[in-house]
Amino acid sequence: MGEVTNHIGSSINYNGEEREQGDAESNTLNQPLVKANRKLSSTPLALVGTKVSHIESLDYEINENDLFKHDWRKRSKTQVLQYIFLKWTFACLVGLFTGLIATLINLAVENIAGYKLLAVGHFLAQERYVTGLMMFAGANLGLTLIASVLCVCFAPTAAGPGIPEIKAYLNGIDTPNMFGATTMFVKIIGSIGAVAAGLDLGKEGPLVHIGTCIASLLGQGGTDNHRIKWRWLRYFNNDRDRRDLITCGSAAGVCAAFRSPVGGVLFALEEVATWWRSALLWRTFFSTAVVVVVLRGFIEICKSGKCGLFGSGGLIMFDVSHVTYTYHVTDIIPVTLIGVIGGVLGSLYNHFLHKVLRLYNLINAKGKIHKVLLSLSVSLFTSVCLYGLPFLATCKPCDPSIKERCPTNGRSGNFKQFHCPKGYYTVRNIFSSNTPNEFSMGSLWIFFVLYCILGLFTFGIATPSGLFLPIILMGSAYGRMLGGVMGSYTSIDQGLYAVLGAASLMAGSMRMTVSLCVIFLELTNNLLLLPITMIVLLIAKTVGDSFNPSIYDIILHLKGLPFLEANPEPWMRNLSVSDLGDAKPPVVTLQGVEKVARIVDVLKNTTHNAFPVLDEAEVVPQAGLATGAIELHGLILRAHLVKVLKKRWFLTEKRRTEEWEVREKFPWDELAEREDNFDDVAITSSEMQMYVDLHPLTNTTPYTVMENMSVAKALVLFRQVGLRHLLIVPKIQVSGMSPVVGILTRQDLRAYNILQAFPHLEKSKGRKAN
Amino acid sequence: MGEVTNHIGSSINYNGEEREQGDAESNTLNQPLVKANRKLSSTPLALVGTKVSHIESLDYEINENDLFKHDWRKRSKTQVLQYIFLKWTFACLVGLFTGLIATLINLAVENIAGYKLLAVGHFLAQERYVTGLMMFAGANLGLTLIASVLCVCFAPTAAGPGIPEIKAYLNGIDTPNMFGATTMFVKIIGSIGAVAAGLDLGKEGPLVHIGTCIASLLGQGGTDNHRIKWRWLRYFNNDRDRRDLITCGSAAGVCAAFRSPVGGVLFALEEVATWWRSALLWRTFFSTAVVVVVLRGFIEICKSGKCGLFGSGGLIMFDVSHVTYTYHVTDIIPVTLIGVIGGVLGSLYNHFLHKVLRLYNLINAKGKIHKVLLSLSVSLFTSVCLYGLPFLATCKPCDPSIKERCPTNGRSGNFKQFHCPKGYYTVRNIFSSNTPNEFSMGSLWIFFVLYCILGLFTFGIATPSGLFLPIILMGSAYGRMLGGVMGSYTSIDQGLYAVLGAASLMAGSMRMTVSLCVIFLELTNNLLLLPITMIVLLIAKTVGDSFNPSIYDIILHLKGLPFLEANPEPWMRNLSVSDLGDAKPPVVTLQGVEKVARIVDVLKNTTHNAFPVLDEAEVVPQAGLATGAIELHGLILRAHLVKVLKKRWFLTEKRRTEEWEVREKFPWDELAEREDNFDDVAITSSEMQMYVDLHPLTNTTPYTVMENMSVAKALVLFRQVGLRHLLIVPKIQVSGMSPVVGILTRQDLRAYNILQAFPHLEKSKGRKAN
Repeated sequence: MGEVTNHIGSSINYNGEEREQGDAESNTLNQPLVKANRKLSSTPLALVGTKVSHIESLDYEINENDLFKHDWRKRSKTQVLQYIFLKWTFACLVGLFTGLIATLINLAVENIAGYKLLAVGHFLAQERYVTGLMMFAGANLGLTLIASVLCVCFAPTAAGPGIPEIKAYLNGIDTPNMFGATTMFVKIIGSIGAVAAGLDLGKEGPLVHIGTCIASLLGQGGTDNHRIKWRWLRYFNNDRDRRDLITCGSAAGVCAAFRSPVGGVLFALEEVATWWRSALLWRTFFSTAVVVVVLRGFIEICKSGKCGLFGSGGLIMFDVSHVTYTYHVTDIIPVTLIGVIGGVLGSLYNHFLHKVLRLYNLINAKGKIHKVLLSLSVSLFTSVCLYGLPFLATCKPCDPSIKERCPTNGRSGNFKQFHCPKGYYTVRNIFSSNTPNEFSMGSLWIFFVLYCILGLFTFGIATPSGLFLPIILMGSAYGRMLGGVMGSYTSIDQGLYAVLGAASLMAGSMRMTVSLCVIFLELTNNLLLLPITMIVLLIAKTVGDSFNPSIYDIILHLKGLPFLEANPEPWMRNLSVSDLGDAKPPVVTLQGVEKVARIVDVLKNTTHNAFPVLDEAEVVPQAGLATGAIELHGLILRAHLVKVLKKRWFLTEKRRTEEWEVREKFPWDELAEREDNFDDVAITSSEMQMYVDLHPLTNTTPYTVMENMSVAKALVLFRQVGLRHLLIVPKIQVSGMSPVVGILTRQDLRAYNILQAFPHLEKSKGRKAN
Repeated sequence: MGEVTNHIGSSINYNGEEREQGDAESNTLNQPLVKANRKLSSTPLALVGTKVSHIESLDYEINENDLFKHDWRKRSKTQVLQYIFLKWTFACLVGLFTGLIATLINLAVENIAGYKLLAVGHFLAQERYVTGLMMFAGANLGLTLIASVLCVCFAPTAAGPGIPEIKAYLNGIDTPNMFGATTMFVKIIGSIGAVAAGLDLGKEGPLVHIGTCIASLLGQGGTDNHRIKWRWLRYFNNDRDRRDLITCGSAAGVCAAFRSPVGGVLFALEEVATWWRSALLWRTFFSTAVVVVVLRGFIEICKSGKCGLFGSGGLIMFDVSHVTYTYHVTDIIPVTLIGVIGGVLGSLYNHFLHKVLRLYNLINAKGKIHKVLLSLSVSLFTSVCLYGLPFLATCKPCDPSIKERCPTNGRSGNFKQFHCPKGYYTVRNIFSSNTPNEFSMGSLWIFFVLYCILGLFTFGIATPSGLFLPIILMGSAYGRMLGGVMGSYTSIDQGLYAVLGAASLMAGSMRMTVSLCVIFLELTNNLLLLPITMIVLLIAKTVGDSFNPSIYDIILHLKGLPFLEANPEPWMRNLSVSDLGDAKPPVVTLQGVEKVARIVDVLKNTTHNAFPVLDEAEVVPQAGLATGAIELHGLILRAHLVKVLKKRWFLTEKRRTEEWEVREKFPWDELAEREDNFDDVAITSSEMQMYVDLHPLTNTTPYTVMENMSVAKALVLFRQVGLRHLLIVPKIQVSGMSPVVGILTRQDLRAYNILQAFPHLEKSKGRKAN
């Protein structure tokens, strides 16, 4: 090894050939999300919370190279049983841990917030209002500081709800550091801090993220740096099984947030998942069932008062189960109205939140200190508002006809005394039924406006934050207000108005239908409300959809994640994949038995993640035509090329190898790992002249499309099958021509990118029928 | 036209060339479901109910030929809005009509059965037992006769539940006469007759079938023979939109059967549909919401007694809403036990039903008379059993502590007098709670055994019949029995045992989880039962799956429908598509501008449904390589070739046409129709020498796979994208070689057929891990 060593990571360009090709897919830290090729470019910088970094696509295709096939042939019945057993065990564990952590968060939040309020109530009782405010704001600032500093310094990906990133992951986009152990712990503690600080954000989104973190950590057997080397875990060392686990995790998270098992499954299906199989439905369902059992178990334990201030809430959150509801034809008008206004308000919320997030992004971009300061100012503003608001409300005398002890300052209860001598004030439960006069119109207005402002300005700060709670608060205030206006017209209960208002605003903003409906069904435990809820949700979603995309889609777009939509745009039918291919630089191909120098060169000078492997055809049946016939052997992944270099699996002469030669060097489960930092690989110049047989490592069955295939149909194939690379093959059979004319990746098929490269298509946009 | 006319349908073989190719897909009446090619053959004859006939595959691929593309470019915003409006109107109408018909069936059944029982009760009161029996059996025989004769003579496809065929349709298999108007009317009347006759079958399956019939009739604007020629309807003249409509219809049907809107959607998703999109979730949900509103409306009306004997049952069927249920750790044992035994019983039921259906098929094959006689004998047996059974039970005195008037012979009520002087006897509601001593163990045994026998022998007769009811009856009897045995061990209510027993048997036989769980949730209206129901369902399904496939899969297999499973078999990874292609005769290709004689010949002598169109490449960039380069222009459908012949769109010289020449002859919406009987097309011998330009009618973007693609991955593509034909292209680029080496269809990719052709693969079977 006394020879001259070329460190591949260094700047020495091996053979002088400049091949500065932009990659449509992979984005390194140096070229954040912007491609060198200007024709098919990706969306602008990532926003909100995450730092700009390397985003990779996931590969759900089965990599059928010789080694993989061999392993499949070898896999015994025992191993298959191990795999199935582990799959179900993981589904169970995901549910178990999610349920435990959800309980932990609930306990912590209720106790911290409870003791804080008790202390403040103490000062209020002594009429020391300023001290009370300082106490209140100080505690909230401290809690926000903890949440924010943790987020900013240790896990920027823990900020926000996490649901858009999960949605992107299940669509095939791997946001880095999204599902790590640090992220999870920051999310848990940050969520406790932020919610206990009284910020207008929920723990629902974070719980979903925590569920997926648990699933991911289980699947890979530990954190990125400390993994258990358990042989069984190798079955889960692929993107497909990880995807299934993370789907389970997201369902378990929703279930833990709303105590709604079926709603959780449907949420994962309707909102989060891109691919879905019947088998997954069943497994996800199992996870949520476990969550519910855990939650129920703890509720039973806490009933006996062992959990401090943790309330005795059961499975039902909204108290409308006693509302007897009968249909009248006239009810269709208020119900429609709730839906329409809810849809308009929801899309308005999306619109303004978009603006606020863009503004916050400018602030957050200035540095860590700014992020923390922003969070603290929001916390201070929230504290002042929450503290001052009750002083504006009129004190009402306690109604002796109500059984509950009237000023319930101590623990849970609907009526808070606050500053009133013996009046009551309700913030606790806006859904309470049969209480039409409990809220005055004025305080509802204040409540609504305040929560609109807080909801808009709280979400973007650097703490874990869920969107469900702010929207539910706004929606229920709006619903009650509408109920007050419609009051005399219908017999619908005021509490029901609040529930329907919350539902309509959620549908108007998040655009879910079936899952929201089931979540509300499970929250209210009143089946008779189902048809009316369905109608409200459908109307609100329809109205909202006619204005702007759902809030999650807006965030996805803001974060610059290359999400592939389900339906192709109509103008994609008039564009062929060869048009896209022509807008890209020519494909970089490798030979079946390739020189080491060429591999090093290709790896160094391109950022592609896969390369077609071509061979000169050895045998051609028709005599006389054999000259120059080229055969497509398959597609080799960058990771596998790096592995070859690292293992120094070089041949001195140009020859094809036998399968057994390779097998001992490259165990199948090792090939599944996706590491591609080849900076520390040093190749000597004599090694550079050696050869590598790429055949055994090549995926011989990549999916292909003909060059005249329309982009619309190629997109359907790409998304339905879950691909990372799609080869374009020529439609004409000519000897000597390359059998591959291009490679398509996720970025090439995104409508946004195509429109950048082909601006004339823009005019035909908007004709979308499907 | 004075020339010699060749009737294409005649037996004159045009150019003497024998091309007796078996088609992997289409099966004409003369060659029922058996291919000429022995290598890749299909499953045996269709069984149970349907007569053996022409089964076609559906084509969910968008046929991108020049004419279609032109239409897309032309389609205005108005047309897109028309399409969207119509889509939602249809979803609403499907719900509306399904709800109305469900109410009609309920009304008719309750009234016919009610008056029948009143009359029999009259004889019983006079102790004229023999006259009562004759009256009872006679009425039942008459009703069965109507149902059976209608089914046998007018619509054999109306027999059975229809759900397997719907499942097959949504998988891409078009069973003929399945969704026609005759089938629907026979199904409605037959269902009323069969259920009112007291046969042990439900109206749930038939309602699902009726829902899909409504959807299909709406989509095509009338019956097969009498269609409304409304221009808007042309948007629905394709397999994709029809598929969506039928999915809506099936969800509406389940919703109407169980009054369970979310359950209906989930049933369609989990059990029936093969392809699913988020947009569809929403539309399906809308349909079921309409159904529920219609059902609720009629229940309100019937409450005031305007519906004869129709009971005042609300949305809730099982009366367990008042059961307060708390968890104990010890309850896990009975719950597990219910699940395990339910799974075993369910798979046993599947096993024996399979045997009975095979036996019945032998009887039914003998002719129409035999079918009717079989139905009548089952009816007679049922009548005798139902009549005789109460005499075996012990009469119990009325309990004065129960508020209800004790012998409720007149209308609905739990306690029937029958032959007892003043005792009561319950068959009405086995789910009633807090009544542990209402049933004696002996009568439960008799009940269980009787309903097992009836359930096995009733299903296969030639009447519309649902599987849900018999299984629920069996399951609840089993549950109550188990409850009786476990009685002292747990605090679980006996009525709850019955519900869980029914759930477990359904999961054990039908293997659904989430949808069943939601249906039970909506039936019982008790959210607290959810976790326990989930566990029972999961256990029962797991146990059942380890023995045999679900009952619907068994029926699908019996009917010989080429259903494509979701997951490829493991051995498919080791088989390439070229292996399959080699087992088939060579592909029949056409030239871009083809002679009429050749087209006639191909249409007559093959049964293929699509033909690749090849061209000699006109321009090849590399000079010197142009000789003999062949280009794949695309795939042309048989239906379009027939249309060309029918329209006599012939050219005198061999030339390519302009787009406008074609456009006026072939309107886009006409091309969508799938008619291919070309027997009545007469071509003169001079016309035979003319040419047709196939280019504008060719789908230029068929999906393709390389010849070394594994069957597993090709199957994934085929099923995920919803194809009818998949072209195999060579991996080697050689001038002059055909760019298509084979065509794969549904039949080629079925595991069963492949194993017939490659028996050595059988030994590696069973290693299925996914």
